[in-house]
Amino acid sequence: MTTLLGVLGAGLVDPATPQLRMDDLGVLRGDGCFESVRLRPDGGLDDLEPHLDRLARAAAALELPATDRGAWRELVAALVGAWTGAGEGVLRLVVTRGLQEGGRPTAFALLAPVAAEQLRQRREGVRVLALSRGLVADATVEAPWLLGGVKAISYAVNMAALRYAHAAGADDVVFVSADGQLLEAPTATVVWLRDGVLCTPPAAPLGILDGVTVRRLFARAGEHGFGTDVRRGTLDDLHAADGVWLVSSIRLAAAVTALDGKPLRVDAAAAARVQAACGG
Amino acid sequence: MTTLLGVLGAGLVDPATPQLRMDDLGVLRGDGCFESVRLRPDGGLDDLEPHLDRLARAAAALELPATDRGAWRELVAALVGAWTGAGEGVLRLVVTRGLQEGGRPTAFALLAPVAAEQLRQRREGVRVLALSRGLVADATVEAPWLLGGVKAISYAVNMAALRYAHAAGADDVVFVSADGQLLEAPTATVVWLRDGVLCTPPAAPLGILDGVTVRRLFARAGEHGFGTDVRRGTLDDLHAADGVWLVSSIRLAAAVTALDGKPLRVDAAAAARVQAACGG
Repeated sequence: MTTLLGVLGAGLVDPATPQLRMDDLGVLRGDGCFESVRLRPDGGLDDLEPHLDRLARAAAALELPATDRGAWRELVAALVGAWTGAGEGVLRLVVTRGLQEGGRPTAFALLAPVAAEQLRQRREGVRVLALSRGLVADATVEAPWLLGGVKAISYAVNMAALRYAHAAGADDVVFVSADGQLLEAPTATVVWLRDGVLCTPPAAPLGILDGVTVRRLFARAGEHGFGTDVRRGTLDDLHAADGVWLVSSIRLAAAVTALDGKPLRVDAAAAARVQAACGG
Repeated sequence: MTTLLGVLGAGLVDPATPQLRMDDLGVLRGDGCFESVRLRPDGGLDDLEPHLDRLARAAAALELPATDRGAWRELVAALVGAWTGAGEGVLRLVVTRGLQEGGRPTAFALLAPVAAEQLRQRREGVRVLALSRGLVADATVEAPWLLGGVKAISYAVNMAALRYAHAAGADDVVFVSADGQLLEAPTATVVWLRDGVLCTPPAAPLGILDGVTVRRLFARAGEHGFGTDVRRGTLDDLHAADGVWLVSSIRLAAAVTALDGKPLRVDAAAAARVQAACGG
């Protein structure tokens, strides 16, 4: 199964044919935003509407013209309808500033199979390296130009951090602020379990992404016997936790099995309940 | 005069025809690097080789496969040869990670007229807003994943900062670290004059771009009667300076006429010497 591509306003097009101009500000400036949504094997999408909400908020934060929500729903339906993959898919929605400031944004959606490595990490967990994000905690508060919590396509640092972790034999990263507060992973939210309570750092003050999947997890946590708390934490909290996960739309809850080379506690029963609460 | 487009390995192509796949990691992840080079009205390029050097260093920092220097020179020569514009041009060289990690990078060059607004700012100067970059000074030292000094295409924060400044009635931005040290402008190096000495902050420890144009300015400063110094500074240094400039390849030395709404000293004779030393 190869990737499917749809362009907002144009419908399904050939993904192997170039569809983007090279002077698009998406590629010249990393100027745009995106979302990743999980297509389940049953053909349903996880939380499409909350992802469309967040995409619209990110576009507004970037002062991009609004895109048409109905057109997104139609485009997504066309992609899902054309999908013949047997397993899970990742639907990526992308909006860029287009050809020039103030012009029409470029908007498209890609639907591709979930990589086997992502599924393996969901099953077997991830070894994680803690890396500084360089910013002081709360730096983005009252500093909207820093785009805290905006899922912009300017992910070069996130990708570089992942390469750094891979070279060090780890699978993923937990970013901490310059003053040692837990932030997020490059493509996931950090969640830890302590005394039956699932905890995650507050998104707005820390300038991290308000995770759609962690919201789903927290909404269902009670049914699965967990309390929830949004609170600041440090690496010590992860080392002392009863379980740590990187939560995101595609991998769902990937258990962190080691942090900076030290094994973390992984309670298989708790992990199964967390995965179930995430919808996995 | 419209834009010219050349693709490394394919030569000149139609810029109005999409040449980039939408699953290129340049647009999905802002994963790549770029350079901007000035084409003078006499048809010569300012410092092409130092820009190619820096492009190669950025690609290496991003762990992108090396691109062929001879092929870049040929592509640039073809673009300049096809150029019929009367005024100055901006040559942009771009390398992205391409379709997938470890695959072939996408490399292309755009040649376009310099915007009238850039030329106006070079002549008349810029009003500047100081904004926090959120990072503590020296955060990128020993943290290569933060890509300090790497001209990555992930410029969303730089562009957001410029929009924020424009909305506040300013033309440009000077970033400061969370602890108040002068860093750089979103697309330029900060230079200030004090007692006959041109000063600029040190690039490597501060994680800012090592400016090609400021290097040219500093190399020629002696001939124009200036000393030079690479030193850390604060906004107070700019307010107390005998002149402040944003130095970059296209605008050359744009005098800062006001900082956070307060007029800065602008000595016309000194400004003319700085512009001349920049090659303007």
